[in-house]
Amino acid sequence: MSNLDANTWFTEISDRDGSAFSLRINKKLESKQSPFQLVEMYETTDFGNLMIIDGCTMVSTRENFFYHEMMSHPALFSHPAPKNVVIIGGGDCGTLREVLKHPGVETVHQIDIDEVVTEMSLKYFPELCASNNDPRATVMFDDGIKFMAEAAPESIDVIIVDGTDPVGPGEGLFNHAFYTSCLKALRSGGILIQQSESPLMHQQLLRETRAAMLEVGFADLQTLPFPQPIYPSGLWSATMARKGENFTAFRAEDVENAPFDTEYYNVGIHQGALATPNFLKRALAK
Amino acid sequence: MSNLDANTWFTEISDRDGSAFSLRINKKLESKQSPFQLVEMYETTDFGNLMIIDGCTMVSTRENFFYHEMMSHPALFSHPAPKNVVIIGGGDCGTLREVLKHPGVETVHQIDIDEVVTEMSLKYFPELCASNNDPRATVMFDDGIKFMAEAAPESIDVIIVDGTDPVGPGEGLFNHAFYTSCLKALRSGGILIQQSESPLMHQQLLRETRAAMLEVGFADLQTLPFPQPIYPSGLWSATMARKGENFTAFRAEDVENAPFDTEYYNVGIHQGALATPNFLKRALAK
Repeated sequence: MSNLDANTWFTEISDRDGSAFSLRINKKLESKQSPFQLVEMYETTDFGNLMIIDGCTMVSTRENFFYHEMMSHPALFSHPAPKNVVIIGGGDCGTLREVLKHPGVETVHQIDIDEVVTEMSLKYFPELCASNNDPRATVMFDDGIKFMAEAAPESIDVIIVDGTDPVGPGEGLFNHAFYTSCLKALRSGGILIQQSESPLMHQQLLRETRAAMLEVGFADLQTLPFPQPIYPSGLWSATMARKGENFTAFRAEDVENAPFDTEYYNVGIHQGALATPNFLKRALAK
Repeated sequence: MSNLDANTWFTEISDRDGSAFSLRINKKLESKQSPFQLVEMYETTDFGNLMIIDGCTMVSTRENFFYHEMMSHPALFSHPAPKNVVIIGGGDCGTLREVLKHPGVETVHQIDIDEVVTEMSLKYFPELCASNNDPRATVMFDDGIKFMAEAAPESIDVIIVDGTDPVGPGEGLFNHAFYTSCLKALRSGGILIQQSESPLMHQQLLRETRAAMLEVGFADLQTLPFPQPIYPSGLWSATMARKGENFTAFRAEDVENAPFDTEYYNVGIHQGALATPNFLKRALAK
């Protein structure tokens, strides 16, 4: 049955889901233990380069566009005119690159706790780091929870929480204290977006995340499912929370006329992601 | 790296994609070599029962609704008034169950070549077989290619090709001869829908399938992506072809007022599936 040669396959076991996903590898490229986590790089046979953090698949060359586009464009096009953006986590710099495609954005601060992630991405995903030197970008290596706690009130339009799973360094990004800091730092109408795991497999976490966002005072939520081939169940989600007012129609016309290209995202994809599947409607209503 | 115990995990290696997917199992339930293929059943820890055909994951209790709903409802709601439906393959009977939820459907013929698949499904997925005794249903075990070749001209409204991958018994379901039979058997305005593999990983096959459908004389196509957690890449597709006229708006109002329940499909999901991701637009235009 199971006959994956450990020399030619990388396998992530998702114990909580009873599933595992494997990619065939040509070779291990590098491995580095940072003060925070173990970062490993592989060259795969079919998915390009692959970043693993503490044993979990994070990024591959071939399919990272789903995640990075859905963590950035829906939130930015749901805000009327986002100028100041903060990315918490995001050390591979793929989300940063997408955000900087928006000409109206004036500043982006990216705060990842682990410099090793960006060091590896510069080396093995240079295309994701193509905008790191944009004058609008500030790439910092620091504690994102502390950064948000100390951020000036009403100074940010969009906060993107591009962190790992809610264990290890990512744990403090899924709680009331952090969301309270985010709410305070956002201007009215501002948007917080966070990766919120699998809508099929991790419904309890999704419910808790959404409940916490509403409890600290966010006005309205949207949870958008999207494909994520290398994460458990292949289906992932991002949850957006809006300060002060409900979500209204996103800027579809601006998407149509966007002066940049995307691999996944377009008007119909955004609309489609807002169409919650029936099973998820029921799970969220619990 | 790879440390899946072969006694507790079932693994499908997708050699052409350089990926593998595994489900943790409690036990093997049954295994039967039919004249056509090896059908195996497992009880998993988190996905319910699992059917494997010739080493490939086919159906699990937990997530088969994505596939069965997307193989039936988009086609049936894109047809103005489908009365006579044929399912080629579909031996697990999950698609049959969904089709029979439509009160306007008068007859459904299901033709799977392998009776063992249905035998196993009756035993381990009884919920999928709940409508097998509906008086409108005819469950046959025969050669679907021959059935279509001999079908009366202009006698069918919707043909659903719910077959395995284009190797083994499923191979003859992906070619000009078969599509020509389907075209002839459909009434004008009729719809052929076929599972068309992963839009991310199997673009060549998708292009060839679409090209063949147009070459035999179908008038218009729609390829709908949908999540498929246990198939390679987690993202799958169904391609619809229409006889004699282009696709127009589907019957959204009838979806809203449908006298039955679904787990995934709804108006927004149908609209979202029609929003082709940019990477797929480019791949199909090649």
